[in-house]
Amino acid sequence: MSTELSEGIAALPLVDHHVHSALASAVTREQFERLITESDRPLPAGVTSFDSQTGFAIRRHCAPLLGLPARAPADAYWAARAGHTAEQLSDLFLGAAGVSDWLVDTGFKGDELIPLGTLADRLRPARASEIVRLETVLEEVAQASGAAGLAEGFRTALARATASAVGVKSVIAYRHGLDFAPGRPSSAEVERAAGAWLRELERGAPARVSDPVLLRMALWAGVDTGLPVQLHTGYGDPDLDLRRCDPLLLVPWLKEIEGTGTDVVLLHCYPFHRNAGFLAQVFPHVHFDVGLAVNHTGAASTAVVAESLELAPFTKVLYSSDAWGPPELHHLGAVLWRRGTTRALRGWVEEGEWTEADALRVATLIGRTNAQRLYGLPHDSSD
Amino acid sequence: MSTELSEGIAALPLVDHHVHSALASAVTREQFERLITESDRPLPAGVTSFDSQTGFAIRRHCAPLLGLPARAPADAYWAARAGHTAEQLSDLFLGAAGVSDWLVDTGFKGDELIPLGTLADRLRPARASEIVRLETVLEEVAQASGAAGLAEGFRTALARATASAVGVKSVIAYRHGLDFAPGRPSSAEVERAAGAWLRELERGAPARVSDPVLLRMALWAGVDTGLPVQLHTGYGDPDLDLRRCDPLLLVPWLKEIEGTGTDVVLLHCYPFHRNAGFLAQVFPHVHFDVGLAVNHTGAASTAVVAESLELAPFTKVLYSSDAWGPPELHHLGAVLWRRGTTRALRGWVEEGEWTEADALRVATLIGRTNAQRLYGLPHDSSD
Amino acid sequence: MSTELSEGIAALPLVDHHVHSALASAVTREQFERLITESDRPLPAGVTSFDSQTGFAIRRHCAPLLGLPARAPADAYWAARAGHTAEQLSDLFLGAAGVSDWLVDTGFKGDELIPLGTLADRLRPARASEIVRLETVLEEVAQASGAAGLAEGFRTALARATASAVGVKSVIAYRHGLDFAPGRPSSAEVERAAGAWLRELERGAPARVSDPVLLRMALWAGVDTGLPVQLHTGYGDPDLDLRRCDPLLLVPWLKEIEGTGTDVVLLHCYPFHRNAGFLAQVFPHVHFDVGLAVNHTGAASTAVVAESLELAPFTKVLYSSDAWGPPELHHLGAVLWRRGTTRALRGWVEEGEWTEADALRVATLIGRTNAQRLYGLPHDSSD
Repeated sequence: MSTELSEGIAALPLVDHHVHSALASAVTREQFERLITESDRPLPAGVTSFDSQTGFAIRRHCAPLLGLPARAPADAYWAARAGHTAEQLSDLFLGAAGVSDWLVDTGFKGDELIPLGTLADRLRPARASEIVRLETVLEEVAQASGAAGLAEGFRTALARATASAVGVKSVIAYRHGLDFAPGRPSSAEVERAAGAWLRELERGAPARVSDPVLLRMALWAGVDTGLPVQLHTGYGDPDLDLRRCDPLLLVPWLKEIEGTGTDVVLLHCYPFHRNAGFLAQVFPHVHFDVGLAVNHTGAASTAVVAESLELAPFTKVLYSSDAWGPPELHHLGAVLWRRGTTRALRGWVEEGEWTEADALRVATLIGRTNAQRLYGLPHDSSD
Repeated sequence: MSTELSEGIAALPLVDHHVHSALASAVTREQFERLITESDRPLPAGVTSFDSQTGFAIRRHCAPLLGLPARAPADAYWAARAGHTAEQLSDLFLGAAGVSDWLVDTGFKGDELIPLGTLADRLRPARASEIVRLETVLEEVAQASGAAGLAEGFRTALARATASAVGVKSVIAYRHGLDFAPGRPSSAEVERAAGAWLRELERGAPARVSDPVLLRMALWAGVDTGLPVQLHTGYGDPDLDLRRCDPLLLVPWLKEIEGTGTDVVLLHCYPFHRNAGFLAQVFPHVHFDVGLAVNHTGAASTAVVAESLELAPFTKVLYSSDAWGPPELHHLGAVLWRRGTTRALRGWVEEGEWTEADALRVATLIGRTNAQRLYGLPHDSSD
Repeated sequence: MSTELSEGIAALPLVDHHVHSALASAVTREQFERLITESDRPLPAGVTSFDSQTGFAIRRHCAPLLGLPARAPADAYWAARAGHTAEQLSDLFLGAAGVSDWLVDTGFKGDELIPLGTLADRLRPARASEIVRLETVLEEVAQASGAAGLAEGFRTALARATASAVGVKSVIAYRHGLDFAPGRPSSAEVERAAGAWLRELERGAPARVSDPVLLRMALWAGVDTGLPVQLHTGYGDPDLDLRRCDPLLLVPWLKEIEGTGTDVVLLHCYPFHRNAGFLAQVFPHVHFDVGLAVNHTGAASTAVVAESLELAPFTKVLYSSDAWGPPELHHLGAVLWRRGTTRALRGWVEEGEWTEADALRVATLIGRTNAQRLYGLPHDSSD
C-alpha cells in the first residue's frame, strides 16, 4: 500500500520556495566543513563537522551521487568530491534534487555563489525565480539617496528589483529581532534614522542596516509590493539572538498587515515550529516551512516534519531547503523532506487514519501546490 | 497482550472534565468549517477546514457514525451530516463518546448551544455537571452592583452560581495574560477598577471584563470557593497572545494560593504542555490536561499525549475534549485520547517497561479516577 | 545487525560527568518517595511517587537488582529494599551502573551523603573525581574573609578546592536566573555587594548567596580556573523559576567568555534541550547533557534523548545522571541513557541512515569520550 505513497513523494517535482545559489568556486575541506554548520566560528582542533546529523546525512545521501557507497567515510567522501569542479557539483546535486522551481534569495554573499542567470541556464528545464532581500536593496541605495530621499529611493529600487521577482524577504530577525514596533514608521522617523545611519556610513561603517525604524520601513515597503513576504524566524547562525526570533513575537505586526492582502511566510521556525503552526492555523495570511532545520537535523528530521503537521492547515505549509553554498545542501533538503514526509504520512496511512490518496495530496500541497498558488508560479502539464 | 489494554481503554467510561455544550441549531457548511478551527477569521477563498488534522480526523472517526465508510470525502461527509438535526447529531456523537461525566463550562456563547439542563436530560444515564466561568458571572452582575458593591455582588452571585457546580474557570489568559500580579487585590483597588469599568459600560462598551484587577478579584474569589479552579493556558483563538499563556507565568500565583487547599487545573497547555508537566510534578495542587490540542492535532496527537506523560505524576493528568459546538468534537476528543493513550502506553508495555496492568491503571487514572477525586464526582458500580 | 549496537552500548563504560553521592543512611519510605521527585513539597495524602515515570522505571530496572521480578509492585520493592543498608544499596546500584568515572558535585547537602573519599574507595576500580560547586565555596569563606577580602578569599579557597578537581559548577540558575549581566563585576561592585551580604549574615541569615554581583564574581572566578564550568539550566525543584533557566539566556555571557578558552557544560536543559543543541552547534565552547530529565521521564525518555541529537554536534553531548541520594537514581540514569540511545540510534541504523559503526561511535563519544577529552580524564586500556 505505502509503495504508492513512497513512489509518489519520490517523484513529486518540488518547489524549493526559499533557497540560495550554489558555490561558484572550489572550496577547501575546512571551508566546506564550516559551510555545513550554522556556526560561524572556526572549528575547534580535532573536531570535524562530519560528526553531526548534517555530516552523516551527506555521507548517506550525497555519497552515492559521487559514485561512492551510501554512508562512505568522510575522508572518502572528500576525496571523491575534490575531483569535481564547482559547476559539476552544482549540476549533479541540484539536478538530482527533483526540484522544478527554485525561488532564490539573491541577497546574501552573492559574490561567492553562481549568479542567478547562470544558475537558471544550467538548471533548465527547471525554473529559477528571484526572492529579493529587502535589507540588501536598502543597503545598495543608501548613500546615493540621502536621508530625505531614502524612503523614496528605496521604493524605487525595490520596484525595479522586484519587477520580475516572486517574493521579498526580510532578515529583521537577525538585524534587530522580531520584537519590533508593529506600525509603519512615519516619514519623519525614517528621515531621522536615515540621517543617523548615513552619518555612520560616511564615517566608514559597513553598509549593514540595523536601525529598527529603517528595517520596519523596508518591511512595510515589502508588504506594499503585494508579493509574499518571507521572514527569517528561529534558528540560524549566532549573529542572531534566538530568543528574539520566536515567530509569536510577530503577532502585533501580523495583525497590523492583516488587511493588506499580503501573505507572509515564516521561514525555518525551529525550535518554534509548533508556534508557527498555531499562527498558520489562526491567521489566514500566515504560511511557514521548517527548511534549514530539516537539513541540520538529518536522520532526526522526521520528528520536526511531523511536528510541523500538528496545528497547521495543510494548505499553509511549504517546502524549502534554505541551502546556501555547498550544493549537497540543495539536494539534501529535498531528500530529507521526502523521507520525513513519507515516514510521517505513511504512519498515519498504516494506522488507518488517512487514505493513501489523502497522504499523497497533502505531500503535493506542501511540496508543490501551496507554493505555486502563493507565488503565482506557472503550472506544468503534470500539475 | 496489548489487546487487553486496547479493549480496556476503549471500554473506559471517561470523565470529560472540561467541555462546552453542543450546537442547538443546524449550521451551514461554512459555519461548520469555521467551528472546527481555532481561527476566528473567514476562510480564504478556495480553502477548506477539512484540509487539517481535525478535518481528516472527522472524516476518519465521525463518518462511520453517519453510516459512511471511514475516511469518506469531505463532501460526502457534509451531505450525510446535513440530513440530521442538531439534536440528532448531538445524541449521536456525544452518545458514542463513552463519557460517563461531562463537566460543562456554561459561560461561553451559551445562547448558541443546547442548555445544560436539556443536555443533561438527553445524555442520561451519563451525568452533566457545571463548571462556572468566573468572568461571565462578573459581567452579569456588574451593572446591578455598582462600583462599591461589585466585589460583594460578585461573591454573592458566584456562591449562587456554584451552589451545584463542581468547579470554576478563569479565562484571564485571554483577557489579560497569565503574567498578572499574583496577590489578592485590595478593596480600594477593586472599587477603583470597578468604577472605571462601570463608566465604560455606561458609555455602551460591551460587558467584557479585561481589567487585571477585576480579573484577579474574580480569580481569588474562585479560589475562595474551594472548588477546583480551571485556567485556560496555551493555544486558543487569536484573541489571545500565546506568549502570555505559558503556564510557567502562573508560578508566583501558584505559590500564593498553595496554602489555601484549592486545586488548580491547567487546561490545554499546548505547546507548553511540557512546562505544565513540570508544574504538576513540583506543585501538589497543580493538575493539567492536553485537551483541545488533541482534537486539533488529530493523527499527530499521539506525540502530544506522550509528551504529557513525561514529568507529570500520573495522578495529576486529566482528560478533556474542550469541545464547543459541533458534536463531532465531543466524540473526537474521546476517540483521539483513547487512541493516543493506547499507542503511547502500549509501546511501553511492549518494550517491557510497564506491565499491562500498570498501563490500564494509568489510563484509568487519567481518563476517569483523577477527575472523580478532584471534583468529588459520584462513583459507579464499575469503579 | 542491531544486536552488536545494543551489546556495544550495554558494555560501554560510562563517564557520569555530573552526579552527586549516594545516601549515607537508611531512609523511610516517605523520605524515599520525596527523593525520587523534584518536588520539595510533602506528598498529598493518598498519592505515591511510585505513580510516575521515575517510580515505574525503578520498579522495572532496579527491582531485579534486589532479586525481584522486573516491574514488581511498589510495596514489594520497598519491602525488599528495606532489608539492605545504605552502603549495600549504594554498592549494588552504583556498581551495576557500568560507570568507570564519576564526576561528583560535592556541594549540595553533603552531610546526608557518603563522603567522596569513602565513595571513591567503595567504587574502585571505578574512579571518582570532584566537581566543586562555586557557591558552596563562597558561602564557606564569606564570614572569615570580610567584605574587602571576599573576592581574594574566595579565589584562594577556590584554588585550594579545585587543586584536584576536574570541573566547577554554578547554580546561578537557582539563585538568580540565567538572565544575569554578562560582564565580570568590578572590585568595587563586589565589595559593596559583599558588605551587604555579610551584614545579613551577621544578622543571622543563612549562608546562602543570592546577590547577582557575588554570583557573577564566583562564576567568573570559575572561568578563570580554566576547568570546565558546569551550569544548572532547565528543570529542577520549585526553588527555581523555570522561565529564567532557559540556556538561551546565557548567550551574552557565552560570548563574553568565548575568548578565554574555558569550556561550558549546560546541565539537564529540559524542556529547553533543543535550545541547548543550538548553542552547542554554534558556540565551540558549549556542551550539554539531558541528565536529570532522562531519569524523570523514564520510559518516555527516548524522545528526550532523540531530541538532544538534532542540532548538536556529536562531539558536544555528554552523559550524566545528576543522581542525588537514592542510589537507584545513579543506576537508572545509566540504564535509561543506554536504552534511549540504543533505541534512537538503532532506528537510524535500521532505516539505513547510519552505519552500525557510526552509531556505536556516537554512543561512545556521548557516553565516554567527549567527557574524557573535556575533563582531561585518564584513559583505560580499553579506550
